[in-house]
Amino acid sequence: MNNKIIPKAVIERVPLYLDYLDKLIDNDNEMVSSKMISQDLGLGEVQVRKDLNIISGKGKPKIGYIASDLRNDLESLIRNEEKTNVVIIGAGKIGEALANYNGFKKYGFNIIAVFDNDLNKIGKKISDKAILSIDMLKDFCLENDVEIVMLAVPSKETKNVCDILKESRIKGILNFTKSKIDIQENICVRNVDMASLLIMLAVEINNNLNYNKGE
Amino acid sequence: MNNKIIPKAVIERVPLYLDYLDKLIDNDNEMVSSKMISQDLGLGEVQVRKDLNIISGKGKPKIGYIASDLRNDLESLIRNEEKTNVVIIGAGKIGEALANYNGFKKYGFNIIAVFDNDLNKIGKKISDKAILSIDMLKDFCLENDVEIVMLAVPSKETKNVCDILKESRIKGILNFTKSKIDIQENICVRNVDMASLLIMLAVEINNNLNYNKGE
Repeated sequence: MNNKIIPKAVIERVPLYLDYLDKLIDNDNEMVSSKMISQDLGLGEVQVRKDLNIISGKGKPKIGYIASDLRNDLESLIRNEEKTNVVIIGAGKIGEALANYNGFKKYGFNIIAVFDNDLNKIGKKISDKAILSIDMLKDFCLENDVEIVMLAVPSKETKNVCDILKESRIKGILNFTKSKIDIQENICVRNVDMASLLIMLAVEINNNLNYNKGE
Repeated sequence: MNNKIIPKAVIERVPLYLDYLDKLIDNDNEMVSSKMISQDLGLGEVQVRKDLNIISGKGKPKIGYIASDLRNDLESLIRNEEKTNVVIIGAGKIGEALANYNGFKKYGFNIIAVFDNDLNKIGKKISDKAILSIDMLKDFCLENDVEIVMLAVPSKETKNVCDILKESRIKGILNFTKSKIDIQENICVRNVDMASLLIMLAVEINNNLNYNKGE
């Protein structure tokens, strides 16, 4: 695992760089430069150069980076083991969409189970992943070194689930509920609120309209 | 509509402020200060003060803002009409989760239809919203002044749908597909890739581990 602390603004660009490098390597490109990346992704060249220096630092002036080395350095930011074990809590619409999603595996995220408290769902499967009882959550996380939880339960269940998670030695929560997560500080929480996404898009639209008015 | 251009970093905090003010107003608080907000949301006070000054600018020293005024100024950033018409394209798992989600209405986002090309789905409903044929998309958007599209189709369909959207006078796309959107510049695009969300969380976890190691 990489021992660097990556600034928040740079974190947001890590998925972009990873995706870009995957495509580059698929097309048998061996070398990559900040200039190429900045042009292809529409980012500032200085920004890209700084980002890559923080993430890897192995670039050579006028030559750039070996694409596969840079890919490895990016990957070392997201996991130290071969796989990162992930569980989904909540087998509703969002949980189901997440369990069916195919894009996690190539980054080493291994979704190993789905949890719910609905007796009609427990024992069934979503896309090969067993739906287990929430009563088994704590023991399952401890036994399987679960690092990340994708939380997609109704808001009123959030507190109960978090109380279990406090004792489950997980390291991060991707929160799809509408509730704030109240948990110890060493567990990272990333909130994914659908309304927030629409609000941010709407503000960008407003910006765009004002910008065009000003021209 | 507000005629301000809001910096990108501030946009990310608009949903937080809106949610915070909603709760405050629900609890009959009339006044609010940067200090209160910064403490309750765990943000820097200087940052909050700057943000609110950009968003509203109507705060008074030592008194703060009238909560409902600030709420209105925030709301004016996200819409100019009573409602913002939104459609969902793709009636799969993600589209269904979005159509069932209840949190959009209170910000004025009005989901008026779902589109799909599957004859088995067209004519049915998801949570009171009709599933219409993708053939009707362009005319429907023009007739109903649709501003925002939530795009949740399989990657291979993305290009076809975007070709239709180019002529549909929409203003923004919330992109849940794994494809990059190639569309004219005056349409805002916000990408929501599930793998990216996990990647960013994993980097935060890595940061957190390194930070604690350094202590």
